[in-house]
Amino acid sequence: MEPELSTREHSGLLTDLYELTMAAGYLQTGFDARATFELFVRSLPKRRNYLVAAGLEQCLDFLENVNFTAPEIDFLRRHPVFRNIRDEFFDYLAKFRFTGDVWAMPEGTLVFAGEPILRVSAPIIEGQIMETYLLATISFQTMIASKAARVVTAAQGRPVVEFGARRAHGAQASLLAARAASIGGCQGTSNVLAGQRFGMETYGTQAHSWVMAHENEALAFRHFLDAFPDHAVLLLDTYDVHNALREILAMGRKPAGVRLDSGDLVKDSRWIRRELVRAGWNDVKIFASGDLDEDKMAALMKAGASIDAFGVGTALATPGDSPHLSLVYKLVEVERDGNVRGAAKLTTAKVTYPGAKQVFRFSDAVGKYSGDEIALSEEPERNAEPLLVQVMAGGKRVAKPETTLQARKRCLTSLTRLPDRYRQLRRDVSYPVRYSTRLKALLETVKRLVHRAKSI
Amino acid sequence: MEPELSTREHSGLLTDLYELTMAAGYLQTGFDARATFELFVRSLPKRRNYLVAAGLEQCLDFLENVNFTAPEIDFLRRHPVFRNIRDEFFDYLAKFRFTGDVWAMPEGTLVFAGEPILRVSAPIIEGQIMETYLLATISFQTMIASKAARVVTAAQGRPVVEFGARRAHGAQASLLAARAASIGGCQGTSNVLAGQRFGMETYGTQAHSWVMAHENEALAFRHFLDAFPDHAVLLLDTYDVHNALREILAMGRKPAGVRLDSGDLVKDSRWIRRELVRAGWNDVKIFASGDLDEDKMAALMKAGASIDAFGVGTALATPGDSPHLSLVYKLVEVERDGNVRGAAKLTTAKVTYPGAKQVFRFSDAVGKYSGDEIALSEEPERNAEPLLVQVMAGGKRVAKPETTLQARKRCLTSLTRLPDRYRQLRRDVSYPVRYSTRLKALLETVKRLVHRAKSI
Repeated sequence: MEPELSTREHSGLLTDLYELTMAAGYLQTGFDARATFELFVRSLPKRRNYLVAAGLEQCLDFLENVNFTAPEIDFLRRHPVFRNIRDEFFDYLAKFRFTGDVWAMPEGTLVFAGEPILRVSAPIIEGQIMETYLLATISFQTMIASKAARVVTAAQGRPVVEFGARRAHGAQASLLAARAASIGGCQGTSNVLAGQRFGMETYGTQAHSWVMAHENEALAFRHFLDAFPDHAVLLLDTYDVHNALREILAMGRKPAGVRLDSGDLVKDSRWIRRELVRAGWNDVKIFASGDLDEDKMAALMKAGASIDAFGVGTALATPGDSPHLSLVYKLVEVERDGNVRGAAKLTTAKVTYPGAKQVFRFSDAVGKYSGDEIALSEEPERNAEPLLVQVMAGGKRVAKPETTLQARKRCLTSLTRLPDRYRQLRRDVSYPVRYSTRLKALLETVKRLVHRAKSI
Repeated sequence: MEPELSTREHSGLLTDLYELTMAAGYLQTGFDARATFELFVRSLPKRRNYLVAAGLEQCLDFLENVNFTAPEIDFLRRHPVFRNIRDEFFDYLAKFRFTGDVWAMPEGTLVFAGEPILRVSAPIIEGQIMETYLLATISFQTMIASKAARVVTAAQGRPVVEFGARRAHGAQASLLAARAASIGGCQGTSNVLAGQRFGMETYGTQAHSWVMAHENEALAFRHFLDAFPDHAVLLLDTYDVHNALREILAMGRKPAGVRLDSGDLVKDSRWIRRELVRAGWNDVKIFASGDLDEDKMAALMKAGASIDAFGVGTALATPGDSPHLSLVYKLVEVERDGNVRGAAKLTTAKVTYPGAKQVFRFSDAVGKYSGDEIALSEEPERNAEPLLVQVMAGGKRVAKPETTLQARKRCLTSLTRLPDRYRQLRRDVSYPVRYSTRLKALLETVKRLVHRAKSI
């Protein structure tokens, strides 16, 4: 019999098994240390000039509330891998709370390769168990917010509504995708629950099925106008776009808008605008949707399509040009018996810089971003904006949650400060990010230590 | 202030706003009809010869329990689009239950283009509101199960473990991806909660961070063997693979296995096997992971890599070669005032066949699948397997839920009956699917009716 399907939001089992085997191993062998982990991408996806940080709010909610129930601990106790593990581990899990400190880039901040989006300092076991949840949550929402910022850029000021619920990875993913798309600049969503939960504007019109269900198209339009005299947006492409518009014009009842979901959007939208203007219906909006992405939207705008707003679904819920972010969560520092030691992974092509870090963002005279420096967190402040701020101390938030709209505003403001050559859709040049001299020196020191350890 | 983040699993607001505007419109205009909707893909993704149906269990759970709470209805009441909508609609939502009949392909069934995976017959409003949830749920899990079947095929009998939790679209998506990967044939998952919820085997070893946290690699391995004498799988590629294995051999304590997560998997795995055999450690397993997919795995096997089991993450949680399925949910039949009418969308390149359908799967003399026929549900049975079975009557399940492992077994059995030319990774030929003569005739009738309606 399948157990119930509901997700326990704050279950400590929302992790990879190896996080728990390592946790058990640290306890069993008396390895007592405080560790710092950092979450970052090694390189930007090919078609991204920048990323937009998102997902922090869900991470903080999880960190504040994560725990293990008795049935969950029982499940682990029966797992063969834990056969030799002492009760100490299971007792530990029963009392488990996250007690660490967290520094992070606020949601909506622009991020580049190598820059920590989030840094956790905690007892090593706690930091380890949290890895999977933090990676999944930041990775997913940052990917969507970053795509949304491109789509919104391509819309050149016209509103973009997120339509991706039906392409999302299940119900919860649809809510979080809508949220992340809003942080990236979308005006609203079709997802009603996301609207209710996150205070976002929701939009919706009619589907082809409305038209198909009626005996004929004119009747379908008339019924919709009856129900929604001020808000009817009529879908024109069920059978024939020109015929559909003529039926509406002949009816003489002005809708709030019309929508095109397929066909030649340039030709059709221009023809529709001419007909609307001829009828004196200058304020009827033309909405476009149907497998749109930033490239298609840019091409439509360039070709002179007459579109007032866009609905974008698949490209926002599951971006095909970058369907995942290779976010990593790396151990950068270990403190044990009073000794602090930088940690680094050194296999070829996958080097990580050791040490707890801060990112400084420099601006030019007119306030445009001119470049970033990744430094050790203990280095003196630069004449630049430090991007990582403390969001959690001893497992508790240090400030009350931000709203999605505050994060959206941060993103939109940041984008106005990003020079056009990085904001554009194409990648011509990379935004300059350098490592501090002290950080580079620490990497060399760690390399020498590892080589010495090997030769012993 | 942001509202609480937890997802209400059975909220009727888990839908696109237009489903609710249409619902309100049908009520307000007295359009009382029973409708049949079908869910299918118009064409297979380029790199798929077949799909594996998955997600039905979550759909049935939703359909049985979906409802609207008072605060949810209040949210709609305050939405400007519903300003002119009478109380009748909000009263209707307060009592809302899904009362329809559902026919579906059981999970693990192989599916081809045009074939309904699921068919809903219900009052048109109910069928409409359910659209978004059904599409997202079946689309996502079918995509993952289909990818998993390819990955498992490429493993040539070696076990594949799903490692995708950190790349999934949030926590709930990670559970459902693990579930769908299991239906597609994966042996288990790294996702602990998925293991607990769906009765799946869970696997986990150690991460690079375990090695990096210790003063040196030998100590890291020794500690892990101390904690897990029978189950330790040691990760070799933190610093240097050869050096790591030599440390383990020098220690003289046999681990259960070793894992490679980067580097030249062919050369390294063969070298490791030789060293293990030389030490008499013939039963130490070699695990491979690190951005693997079916193409890389097939290449590894062809090049003679010596690998006993695979861990596959990103490719299973977010398949880059087909990051979404273009699943649609189309109105195919409307019954109103005693008249049944087929419905079809007729814009160029997006024609849908009208009428409630059944799919018949034919087999040859040795039990291999030879081709499918899509027919009207009222047509007589063929000497073939009907794939759609009734799973819900009047809003209630007609049988108790299947387990994930039953669905997995159905998939693996079906794959043995699929001829190799369709099961292989490359697409050379398409599996034959035809439409019945009566179905083609109905499409022509509907086309004529629509043209006549237009010319009135």
